[in-house]
Formats: sequence, C-alpha cells, structure tokens
Amino acid sequence: MEKIIVCMTGAASLIAILFAVLKSMKVLKFDEGTDIMKKISQSVRKGANAYLNRQYRIVIIFFAVIFVILGVMAFLKLLTPYVPFAFLTGGFFSGLSGFIGMKIATASNARTANACREGLNKGLRVAFDAGSVMGFTVVGLGLLDITLWFFLLKFVFKLPDNEVTGAMLTFGMGASSMALFARVGGGIFTKAADVGADLVGKVEAGIPEDDPRNPAVIADNVGDNVGDVAGMGADLYESYVGSIISSCALGVSAYASFKAMALPMCIAAIGVLCSVIGTFFVRTKENASQKELLRALSKGTNLSAILIAVVSLPLVYFLLGKEHWHLYFAILAGLISGVLIGQSTEHYTSDSYKPTQNLAKSSETGTATIIISGLSVGMLSTLIPIIIVSICVLVAYFVSGGRDDGAHGLYGIALAAVGMLSTLGITLATDAYGPVADNAGGIAEMAKLDKSVRERTDALDSLGNTTAATGKGFAIGSAALTALALMASYIDKVKILPGGAEKIANLNINNPSVLIGLFIGACLPFVFAALTMNSVGRAAQSVVIEVRRQFKEIAGLMEGKADADYAKCVDLCTKSSLHEMILPTIVAVIVPVIVGMVLGCTGVVGMLAGATATGFLMAVFMSNSGGAWDNAKKYIESGHFGGKGSENHKAAVVGDTVGDPFKDTSGPSINILIKLLSMVSIVFAALIIKFSIL
Amino acid sequence: MEKIIVCMTGAASLIAILFAVLKSMKVLKFDEGTDIMKKISQSVRKGANAYLNRQYRIVIIFFAVIFVILGVMAFLKLLTPYVPFAFLTGGFFSGLSGFIGMKIATASNARTANACREGLNKGLRVAFDAGSVMGFTVVGLGLLDITLWFFLLKFVFKLPDNEVTGAMLTFGMGASSMALFARVGGGIFTKAADVGADLVGKVEAGIPEDDPRNPAVIADNVGDNVGDVAGMGADLYESYVGSIISSCALGVSAYASFKAMALPMCIAAIGVLCSVIGTFFVRTKENASQKELLRALSKGTNLSAILIAVVSLPLVYFLLGKEHWHLYFAILAGLISGVLIGQSTEHYTSDSYKPTQNLAKSSETGTATIIISGLSVGMLSTLIPIIIVSICVLVAYFVSGGRDDGAHGLYGIALAAVGMLSTLGITLATDAYGPVADNAGGIAEMAKLDKSVRERTDALDSLGNTTAATGKGFAIGSAALTALALMASYIDKVKILPGGAEKIANLNINNPSVLIGLFIGACLPFVFAALTMNSVGRAAQSVVIEVRRQFKEIAGLMEGKADADYAKCVDLCTKSSLHEMILPTIVAVIVPVIVGMVLGCTGVVGMLAGATATGFLMAVFMSNSGGAWDNAKKYIESGHFGGKGSENHKAAVVGDTVGDPFKDTSGPSINILIKLLSMVSIVFAALIIKFSIL
Repeated sequence: MEKIIVCMTGAASLIAILFAVLKSMKVLKFDEGTDIMKKISQSVRKGANAYLNRQYRIVIIFFAVIFVILGVMAFLKLLTPYVPFAFLTGGFFSGLSGFIGMKIATASNARTANACREGLNKGLRVAFDAGSVMGFTVVGLGLLDITLWFFLLKFVFKLPDNEVTGAMLTFGMGASSMALFARVGGGIFTKAADVGADLVGKVEAGIPEDDPRNPAVIADNVGDNVGDVAGMGADLYESYVGSIISSCALGVSAYASFKAMALPMCIAAIGVLCSVIGTFFVRTKENASQKELLRALSKGTNLSAILIAVVSLPLVYFLLGKEHWHLYFAILAGLISGVLIGQSTEHYTSDSYKPTQNLAKSSETGTATIIISGLSVGMLSTLIPIIIVSICVLVAYFVSGGRDDGAHGLYGIALAAVGMLSTLGITLATDAYGPVADNAGGIAEMAKLDKSVRERTDALDSLGNTTAATGKGFAIGSAALTALALMASYIDKVKILPGGAEKIANLNINNPSVLIGLFIGACLPFVFAALTMNSVGRAAQSVVIEVRRQFKEIAGLMEGKADADYAKCVDLCTKSSLHEMILPTIVAVIVPVIVGMVLGCTGVVGMLAGATATGFLMAVFMSNSGGAWDNAKKYIESGHFGGKGSENHKAAVVGDTVGDPFKDTSGPSINILIKLLSMVSIVFAALIIKFSIL
Repeated sequence: MEKIIVCMTGAASLIAILFAVLKSMKVLKFDEGTDIMKKISQSVRKGANAYLNRQYRIVIIFFAVIFVILGVMAFLKLLTPYVPFAFLTGGFFSGLSGFIGMKIATASNARTANACREGLNKGLRVAFDAGSVMGFTVVGLGLLDITLWFFLLKFVFKLPDNEVTGAMLTFGMGASSMALFARVGGGIFTKAADVGADLVGKVEAGIPEDDPRNPAVIADNVGDNVGDVAGMGADLYESYVGSIISSCALGVSAYASFKAMALPMCIAAIGVLCSVIGTFFVRTKENASQKELLRALSKGTNLSAILIAVVSLPLVYFLLGKEHWHLYFAILAGLISGVLIGQSTEHYTSDSYKPTQNLAKSSETGTATIIISGLSVGMLSTLIPIIIVSICVLVAYFVSGGRDDGAHGLYGIALAAVGMLSTLGITLATDAYGPVADNAGGIAEMAKLDKSVRERTDALDSLGNTTAATGKGFAIGSAALTALALMASYIDKVKILPGGAEKIANLNINNPSVLIGLFIGACLPFVFAALTMNSVGRAAQSVVIEVRRQFKEIAGLMEGKADADYAKCVDLCTKSSLHEMILPTIVAVIVPVIVGMVLGCTGVVGMLAGATATGFLMAVFMSNSGGAWDNAKKYIESGHFGGKGSENHKAAVVGDTVGDPFKDTSGPSINILIKLLSMVSIVFAALIIKFSIL
C-alpha cells in the first residue's frame, strides 16, 4: 500500500514535470519575431533574471539564519533533526517553481506577440502553453517534494506515520517564507514600476502606455513577471503543499490509519492527471469574441474539475470504505467552492456586471466618490466568499463525522482544501497566462507591430484580467482553507508534544489568552497591508524621480532620437523592492514567536484564527477593490461615461492607481502571511511550550 | 446595603441631571447676538428639530414592532415579562439623551459665537458648558435608568440578584437600537450635507466654506448637531449603561454576592461626582494658544481621572474586602487605557505629529498617493490601540483572579470597561463641545462678524477636532471593552437558561460553529461599513443635484441678492438619511438571530468575538484615516506644501472627502454595531436555544 502511494504520487509528479518540459519545448520552438522584438524580450529577460538573482541572494541569507536557528533547536531536542533540512527543501522547491515560471514567461512574451501576428488562436495557444508550464511545474515540484520526503522518512528512516507527517509539515515553513519574499518583493517591484511609469509617463509627459520612450517601460514588464508570475507561483505552491501535508497529518491523527494519510496524496495525483487532460480542451476559433475566449479557458478548467469529482468518488470509497465514503462530499465541497469564489470575484470585478459599471459611473461626481465607491465594492464583496467558505467548512466538517469526533471533522476541512486545490495545474495555467499576454501586448506596442496584432494581444490581455481576478479569488479561498487546516494541525501537534496537551487544554474563545491572541491576529493583516502599501509608495517615489531625471537629462529622448536607460530603472526597482521586502517578512516570522512566548499556545491559536479571518477579508477586499477600479477604468476607456481623456477618466485613473498596490501587493501578500504564521507556529511549538509565560 | 446603593446611584444621577440643568440655564442666559445670528441659529434649530422628530417617528415604528415581538416571546415564556418594558426604557432614555444634547447644542452655537465677540475664554466657557450639559445628561439618565430598574426589580418585584441583572441587561438592547438609528441616520445626514455643500459650493461654484449663498450650508450645520452630538450621545449612553449592567451581571455570577454587583454602580456614581469637580478646572486665560486651550480641557479630564483612581481604591477595599482588593487594578487599567487610546489617536491624526505631516507631504505626488498613504496611516494606527486593549484585558483578567476562576476574570474585564467610562461625564463634555464650536464658526461666518471673532471660533474649532478625535478613540475603546463584557454576559446568560449549558459547552475556537461564527462576525463590520458608505454616497448625490438646481434656478443667489432655499436641503438630507438608515439597522438586528438559528449559541459567541475584533480594527482604521486626512488638509491650508488652492491642496481635499464618511458615519456606526449584536443575542438567547439547528 505505502509503496503504491509513493509510486502513484511520484508518477504524477513526474508526469506533471514532463508535461511542463514538453510544453516549454513547444513554446520555445516558436519564433521570437523581429529583431526589435527579440531585443525587447531580451531586456525584460535580463531584468527579471537580475532581479531574481539578487532576490535569491538575500533569501539565502535569511534561510541560512533560520537554518542555523532550527539546527540549534534540533540540537536542543526542540525539533526532530529532519526539520532544518525539510525547511530548506520547501524553500528551494518553492523558489524553483517561481524561477521556472518566470523563465518561461519571459521566454514566451515575444513569441506570443509574434504568434498573434498570425492569428488569435495561435497567440492564445502560445500564451496558455507558457502558463501551463508554470502551473504544472508548481504541482509537479510540490508533489515531488512530498514524495521525496515521504519516501525518505517512511522507507529510509522508517518513522511511524505521525512522525512522518510531523516532519513533513515543517517544509511548509520553508515554502511559506520563500513565497512571502517572492510575493512581497515581486509585488513591490511590479507596482513601483507600474506607478512610476504611469505617473511620469502617462500623466506628466502625456505619452501612451508601453511607449518605448518611457524609461520605466521595461521595468514595468519585468515587474509583471517577477510579481504576477514568480510571486503567484510561489504562493500557490505553498497552499498546494500546505493543504496536502496538513490533511495527511490530520488524517493520521483522526483515523490512526495510513489510508487516511494516503487519500490527500492520491487526490493530488489524480488532480494532476485530470488537469493535464483539461489543457487539451483549451482552444478557440479564429476571431473568437471575448466571451468565446473565456469559454475556451473555462472549458478546460471545468472539465478538469468534473473529472476529478468523478474519479475521486471511487477513490474515497476504495481507500476509506463504506463507513467513511461521505468524506467525498468534503472534497466536492472544496472543488465547488473554488469555482464559486472565482465567480463571485468575477461578478464584483468584471465590467460585464453592475458593481464595476456602477463604479465607473461614480466617476461622474469626481475622484472622491470613485474612491469611496471602490472601497465599498471591495468591502461588500467579502460577504459572498465568506459565506461560501463557511458553508464549505460546515459541510466538510459534518459529512466527515465531525459531530461525533472533532478530529474527523477537521480532517474533512483539510480535505476540502485539497479538493479545491486539486485543479491547481490548470487553474494556475489560466492565471499565469495573463502576464504573458500582458507582456506580449507591451512588446507589440514597443516594436510598433501592426495594429491588428495589438488588438489581438489586447483581447488576450483583457481576458487575462478576468482570469487573474478569478485566480486571485481562488488563491485567497484556498489560502483560507489551508490556513484553517494548518491551525488544526498546530493544535494536533502541540497536543502530542511533551507538556503540550495541558498548555492547549483551554481553547475556549472567552479564555483571555485566546481572545487577546485573536485581537492581535486580527490586527496583523491591517498592519501588514499598511507596511506593504507604504513600501510601494516609497519604491514608486524613487522610480518617479529617476524617470523625471531621464526625461530631463537625456537629450532627444522625447523625440525618439535617443534611448532611455531602461536598466537603471530596473536596477532601482530591484534595489528598493528588495530593501522593502525585508521588514514585512521579519514581522511575519517573529510575531508568532512573540505572541507564543507571551500568551502561550492558546494565544497562538487565537492569533491564527484572528489572522485567518481578517486576512481572508482584507485580501478579498483589497483584491476586489483593486480589480474593480482597474476594470472601471478600462470600461471608461472603452467609451463609456465620457471615455478616454475625460474628467471621469482622470478620476478612474486615480482609482486604478490606488488599486494597484491593493490588488497586486498587499492583498496577495496577506494570503501568504496567514499561512506563514501557522507554519512558523508549528515549527516553534516545542520552544513555546517550554518557555511561554502563560 | 442594597438601599444605600440605590440612594447613592440615585443621588449621583440626580446630581448629574441637576448639574446639567444648572449648566444649561447658565448657557441660556447668554445673548444670541445680532438679529442675523438669531435667525441663522433659529434655522439650524428648526432643521435639527425637524430631523429628530421624523427620526423618532420612524424609530417608534421599529420599537413598536420589536416590542410586540418581545411581548409574544415573553408570553411564550422565552423572556421574562420585564424585558419588553426594559427594552422601551433603554430606547427612550438613549433617545432623550441625544435629544437634550442636540437641543442645548443648537441653543448655544450662536451664544458661543457671540461670546467670542467678547473674548476667547468666554467663548470656551459657553461651548464647554453646552458640552457639559450633554455629558452629564448622558451619565445622569444612564444612572437614572439603572437606578429605577434596580429599585423596581429588587424592591418592588423582589427578584433575586441574578434575575435582576438578567432583566436589566435587556434594556441595553433598546439603548443600542436607538443609538444605531441615531448614529447611522445622523452620520449619513451630516456627511451628505457636508459633501454636498463642499462639492458644489466649494469646488464647483468656488465660494468659501459656510458661505450663506450655499443652499446646503444650514443643512451642514444641522448635520453637526444631529450626527456628532445626538449620535455621539446615544452611542456613549449605550456603552456607559451596557458596561455597568454587564459587569453587575458578571459580578453576581462570579461572586454570588450583592457587593460585586454594587461595585460597578458605585464606581459610576463616584465617577459622576469626580467629573463634576473636574469641570470647574476647565478655564483659560485670554488669547490662550492652541496648546493652552488643549491643556485647559485636559486638566479637567485628567483631574477627574486621578480623583476617580484615588477614591476607588478604598471603595473596592471596603466592598470586596482584603481578599479581592486587587480588582482595583482592573478599574485602573481601564482608566489608564482610555487615556492612552486617546493619545494614540491624537498621535496619528493631529498635525502636530509625523503621521499627519507625512500624509500632507504625500499630496505632492498627487491624489492617488495621499489616498494610499491615508489608508495606510489608518491601518497602521490599529496596532497601538489593540495592544493597549489587549494589555488592559490581560491585566484586568489576571488581577481579578481569572487564573483560578474564569468568571472572576471576566468580571474584572467588565470592571475595566466601567473604569474607562467612569470619566464619561467630562470626556463627553470635551467631545460634544467640538460641534458647538464648529457651528459657532459657521454662524460667525454667515453673520459676517468681525474677523477676530472667526479667528477665536477657529481656535476653538480646531481644538474641537483634536478632542473629537480623542473622543472617538475613547468611544471605540470603551465599545470594545463593553462588547467583550457583553459577550461574557451572553455566555453566562445562556448557561443559566434551561437547556443552555449543553448548547454552549463547546466554545473551543476550533469547533466549526465557533469558527464559522467568527468568520461571519468578522465580515459584518466590512459589510456594514460598505452599506453606510454607499448610503452617504447616494444621499450626497441627491444633495448635489438640489444645490446645483438652486444655483441655476434661483436668480440673484450668487450675487447675494436672493436667499437660498435652505429648508429644502435640510428636508432632502432628512428624507434620504432616514431612508438610508433602515437597512443597516435591520441587518444588525436580524443577523445575530439568523446566525444563532443556524449555528447555535456557540456560533453566536464566535460571531460576537469576530465582530468585536474586526469592528474595533475597522472603527479605529476608518476614524483615524478620516481624521488624518482632515487634519492633513488643514495643515496644507495653514500654509505648508503649497497652501490653499495649490494642486497639493486639491489632492488633500479629495482625501478629506473620502475621509468624511469614514470618520463620521461608518467608523462610529461600527462601534454601536458590535454592542447591538451582543444585546440582540442576549435578548433572543432563549429562542435560539430552543430552535437552533446546531
């Protein structure tokens, strides 16, 4: 049985990686187009590489420090000796996912633009194939990491099941830390470049978007890759791995059976295969409308989801038997919730629906009203996702027998997270496709390609905005479920540690340490959002000054006679975003330890619950406000309420600029924050049991 | 013993009311000034009266409906027969507090302006005396309500202590509902008028603030009175009464001794006397600087706080004996926290400190950056208050022996709330003084008084902004503590109801009903904020259209040859704000019942905890962002970063407009929401125990 599972997950992981390799070979066979296109693409690639290299250099220092700390703790018997190494591999694979995704994204932007010269369907295929490389690399490497450690701990070190899952849980901390660096650093980079390029280029100098005269234009394109691709990849790698290992751990403690541990791994493996099948159904006819394009993508995702739903039923029945086959509904609840949250996000942020259209209309009474309305759209949009997640949690808990045995119920919640994330391969493909299409549009503009090419890339890009919005909803929903599963794993873990059961006995919500933990946890996403927004502000400030300087000092730049110093802007964004990413990350790692030291393990649980609740709300609020402003602006640009250049448009541009750090930096970073908090808590559990005040 | 307590609280309540009467007679003796001043003041008075009359007419319907529902529930033995009547008196006294406060405020605005013609100190005295009437009416009526019911239930119906407190708890629901109407309705009115007046008058027509040609100028002044005075009064009446009765209830159940029930009432009584003494120390010399004015007000408040701190020590010792005198520190923790939260608010919102100065500076890079920075100032400003409240709760819990007996600890937390609110008489006086000074400035402008008069009222007004900010911090902090005490009372109440103990046994935070309750509760402040912001937007929209119409249609208005139709604008604000206040209130009343029906009592507790946590955070965030934007604009107007009329100023005006509904509608309403949720839960507890699904 154990061996079958290892083979199955191992095989699925290799299939995913192989599929990613084949797809990338296919993409790389396409031509990059004209010399100018090659040159631009080359600059973007160089910038993104330079950024990631320097980011990894900083991250290595962080990992080295934590590795030493964990090593000392392992030496003091506060951790098992595998933990420091598990931590490293988690970070390594997470970073690798982002790196590969970024590599292929930067390799395919010019190719997509070039393919669009031939037709829309070809462009879609190239961009979507590039996205697929990212999606399947993430799930492939995630499963590989899980398989390797499972094999090592189970067959080489021959540990019992609960110690296997205990050690595996900790590589999530490595993945989370890496993800936070990638999301925060990349998020600051992309928005600093974007805001800088827009404020000076579009507003002050009055040149169009993606104009090659704008010194920050390459940095802007680099930002899409390091933020939206590498950051998103690391984020979802982390949710994927976290949900699987935490449900393995909860399964072992609920059923004391290997089969309960095997189930999440099997679902993940099946998910990979169904996602691969789904990708083959993403294709569209020439001159497809926006709706048809979207339908092409949805067809692939939905098909994968249905396949998984069908195949998991016999799987659950086979693994858990007649008595427990109801757990299938937990998986199903997760799958369906993922789709519904995506639809809710679309409803609130797409200009096909009332909320964004009304938001665009509110620009008629000026900037203040569009800001107020945008904030209120985002706040209101939290209601439906929270109800979806609530119902999903309740269903998952009760169908898995939580009423009779709480541990069974918690396992059910974790399975719902696994169910939701089982389609990750293809969901992430449709999501990562967006920045590629966006970049392709930029290259088409800069290389002065035919207008029809830009129209095609615009169609792809606009679709990318929708998939990015639903992707964000999916990322937030899965992060919340994963965080809940990790919280349950934390409680489980503390209970089995020496002296832990007593420390965590009173989890009553009116126990003041739980309550205070809850208050502090609830506050963290607010503080984190503030810190990251300020970081974007400061970084953008420096870009603004540099772009202004180049416009002033480089003679002939505005006339197109001289080249802008793109590298300088890329370098500046790199420096300032890397500088700015350090404080938020340290906050996220240190706070759980401090809270634990003062309030004890019960305080930590309160903190995790509070952070998950407000983290989810803030992430939805900020992502959806940002998305709605962005699309309201585009709606006006497409000719409504006065169109481009009108006063309404100016008001909408301000809304969009406020929304930029909302949706691309702060909102997504909070996702990772809530998972990292639980991961850090799990790793430092023994330390806190020993030394906490309360 | 019981009789002494009744006499003591009764006497304190009468002293407060008498003091308020004396102060109002003193204020009314002053002259209203010139005929124009009288006429303007008359219009404001008329508008405010009209608004309140119509508000009360709607509120009466609501109260009648709920009264019938409660009556039916009492008939079905789901409630004691006193509850429906307690509900009515709570609403009545809360409304009366607001009404009296508004009456005196509208009677003293012209008098303050006129007093300022003679000197600054005299102006301060009149405005502060008017504020005192409000402050002492609130505490006087609050204590009166408590004394009457206590007398009735204890001496007439001769109920045992726990039933006395059980019935008294429910008049909080009446007070909360009334407060919510007052805060939401008044908040929408004041901001709709303000935004409408500013957008058309200041921005479009280019006439100065408070210009008599602006048709919305009277509505704007009316708004200050119905929102900032009547709303604030009802809000704090509710916190005051809620904290006292919930700590009485918790005291009885923790100590099973009347003395523990008597303590909070005695502290409240002492607080009244010490606050009265404090008011005598509020005076300043002529031509006092801003700092000296602030010092004059702080002297009164601080002196009261110190007096209370000194007198409570022997009181606690006498009532609870040597064994439990440590509870004194719970009261002290509350008192000190109130002061500290006020200071934190001042730090983040006053232009004497870095955050607001930096915010003003961020206007240099445009509107978007001042919005982003303002949001981030508000979010960051949640950290310190949450740490203060956390420490306060921990200290209160542990000094009162919570480690050995949780019930003792919860009583300690409730006492901290009583301690914080014990200075309410004078705190509210300094707070309610603000709108009076603001109105006085408006009247000075409209009546074209000498420039020196406007300078003096400006000095008073600017001080009012600071006291309003600290007052808001105080209101939020006390609301959070009161909500926690009410949550504990709810748990207590459910436990003693038939079948309740079992229903509420599992309050573990990882029990999914608690967790889901937490999620939904955490979401409510977001939804509530969105609803109220949208309401302001819609109401302001209608004012904008009306003001534009008047400018266009009334010939000679702009030249000052014709009068604007002020009454129309007041009427419009009244109609739309009353219309808009209904939905949020119904949401607040119905949601706890629905959550209870679905998730059971444990879900309700989770909801209360979640709503208190995010409600506190959102209220601080929104109030402080709004305050910081307001003062950043004023800072620029005072000549920094380009001064009035510059591009920076325009950006700051947008920030201020966004901040208006933040700080004066949504933020303060959330305060009441979190208390009302617990009150409704308490009243419907028996129903939910009987009929809930989980």
